[in-house]
Amino acid sequence: MMVRPGIGPQPRDERVTLKHGAGGRAMRMLIEETLAAGFLDGSTDEIGLAALDDGAALLIGDRWLVVTTDSHVIHPIFFPGGDIGRLAIAGTVNDLAVMGATEVLGLTSAMVIEEGFLHSDLERIQHSMQEACREAGAKIVTGDTKVMGRGELDGIIINTTGVALADAVVSDAGLSSGDRILLTGPIGDHGIALMAARRGLGLEGDLRSDVAPLNGLIRRALDTAKGAITAMKDPTRGGLASALTEMAEKSQVGIVIEDAAVPVTPVVRSAAEILGLDPFHIANEGVAVIGVRPDAADAVLAAVRAHSLGQSCAIIGTCTDEHPKRLILDTGIGRRLVTEPEGEPLPRIC
Amino acid sequence: MMVRPGIGPQPRDERVTLKHGAGGRAMRMLIEETLAAGFLDGSTDEIGLAALDDGAALLIGDRWLVVTTDSHVIHPIFFPGGDIGRLAIAGTVNDLAVMGATEVLGLTSAMVIEEGFLHSDLERIQHSMQEACREAGAKIVTGDTKVMGRGELDGIIINTTGVALADAVVSDAGLSSGDRILLTGPIGDHGIALMAARRGLGLEGDLRSDVAPLNGLIRRALDTAKGAITAMKDPTRGGLASALTEMAEKSQVGIVIEDAAVPVTPVVRSAAEILGLDPFHIANEGVAVIGVRPDAADAVLAAVRAHSLGQSCAIIGTCTDEHPKRLILDTGIGRRLVTEPEGEPLPRIC
Repeated sequence: MMVRPGIGPQPRDERVTLKHGAGGRAMRMLIEETLAAGFLDGSTDEIGLAALDDGAALLIGDRWLVVTTDSHVIHPIFFPGGDIGRLAIAGTVNDLAVMGATEVLGLTSAMVIEEGFLHSDLERIQHSMQEACREAGAKIVTGDTKVMGRGELDGIIINTTGVALADAVVSDAGLSSGDRILLTGPIGDHGIALMAARRGLGLEGDLRSDVAPLNGLIRRALDTAKGAITAMKDPTRGGLASALTEMAEKSQVGIVIEDAAVPVTPVVRSAAEILGLDPFHIANEGVAVIGVRPDAADAVLAAVRAHSLGQSCAIIGTCTDEHPKRLILDTGIGRRLVTEPEGEPLPRIC
Repeated sequence: MMVRPGIGPQPRDERVTLKHGAGGRAMRMLIEETLAAGFLDGSTDEIGLAALDDGAALLIGDRWLVVTTDSHVIHPIFFPGGDIGRLAIAGTVNDLAVMGATEVLGLTSAMVIEEGFLHSDLERIQHSMQEACREAGAKIVTGDTKVMGRGELDGIIINTTGVALADAVVSDAGLSSGDRILLTGPIGDHGIALMAARRGLGLEGDLRSDVAPLNGLIRRALDTAKGAITAMKDPTRGGLASALTEMAEKSQVGIVIEDAAVPVTPVVRSAAEILGLDPFHIANEGVAVIGVRPDAADAVLAAVRAHSLGQSCAIIGTCTDEHPKRLILDTGIGRRLVTEPEGEPLPRIC
């Protein structure tokens, strides 16, 4: 008989808070201390849960099977520039792509739906998923459907898991001193568009989520400079600050970012000011951070810029031996340490 | 610009109901008409979403990659015989196993957690997942954590997706006339135990969910009679009646079941009567239906019975050319047609 401690609220017991799901330090601590405990990898080659990367990489013969999973809880489900269906496909395709797996074998789609949800909304979401699959050259191969009672779930949750083969895996931990940091597009569009829509800011015409599958763009970068791309990550929850901090910590290098080089559109900059948010901390769903050996940086930059989703790509910084595991922002007047947000300030952002 | 129909309730529009998530005919109709539409398979070899099987099978070289996904919304999350963590691992391992993929490459674990959820409950669930992984010889390789606000989700949802390699895939559509139908254990334990716990029936000591990973048992069956196993399925939501009806329809055979041969424990039979439920319609999480060529049936029966989870295994019926696509129950006094339930009568059963 299993020992079963009492169920229900217990005084002084710790509880999960919104920041634990927000992609920042609090979430990583929860995963490291509770969820990944006991699942440490025995192998040094394969990338598993303990690596806390965007997905796992498993050896099959002489190739890698890359696997990644994401549950999407975004609110509202229809937003400027996309919806939960497009997000679910793009989010998973991008997690595969930043690990170097740009040819998707298949995606799964598991929906949990609140009783009373409209069939017409379900069809609209399904249509978006199909469209995003077409853009990514991917297909949904299997699924699951659950229904919860009215009031037991706010709307709909979609989990998408993706599997893809890769000849070589790119992790988020491979940066070396001297590597250049590329950012494929402007930051903040997704989170700010969503927040503006929630607050009724009336900027919906100008603000749109960047949500898009990036595997085509990343394939182009990889094809341009095979072996020269040392690390990749998509700065979703926690934003660019979280993604770069994680890459610096795992790679044991410092990263110096030139503030003026980071693309932010004027409308996002304005809206972020109105909302009191820092674009560096805001979720993105259509850009990637790419670490490149210095001699290949210009070629990769040109290749990404030639892609429709990469026209604003910029070299935003450089890795250094100084300040290992730190993210430094060069403002033009001086340098300051950037700290990872405790949690993304916006709940249900993806 | 995407054309965006009005958001929000629309009069006379159809809405999702609990029965759409209940594993019966209503759910299959929803999936066929809405969710799988536009994702029809072009290939005849691979098993994809349109096959509505327990998972997908994708060719990699000369082997099959089997992929399956399930979101677990069970209530209560701790129940006699298990919890949501054990269920999440066993459910996905079993879906892989009934497709012939008994060696799990990896599982993903994506949790959506309500704000305020106890850390100690999370640890307890995590412990169950580890234990079930050990039983199945499986490991969690990657995960995702999202948090929803208080009142936006009732507790916790866990999605587990599994990937496994198989040399040959077993579908749920391969039955031929003459094949024998084996059931590896008694039916109704999971659903009845859960329902008794919810209603406070006071039978918890005797009623326990059968939730368990079956890949070891199924491997033994496959090893005993390679090629003689023609179809498998685990009778979860919708129960044995739904599973057999689906197998009969897809295989285009009739299935005649001998009522007296179907194992049901006395306590489940009594509790089902008190609750007004039919064990044939109740979810199971630790038994499988196996279709076997007649000459191998006794050998497979003996092999399964020698496994600790298969001691009550029985041959419960035979496939026939008569009544194609129908499930017939032989009661000993006469025969009657069994219809698939519209939906499993118990919401949030898995």
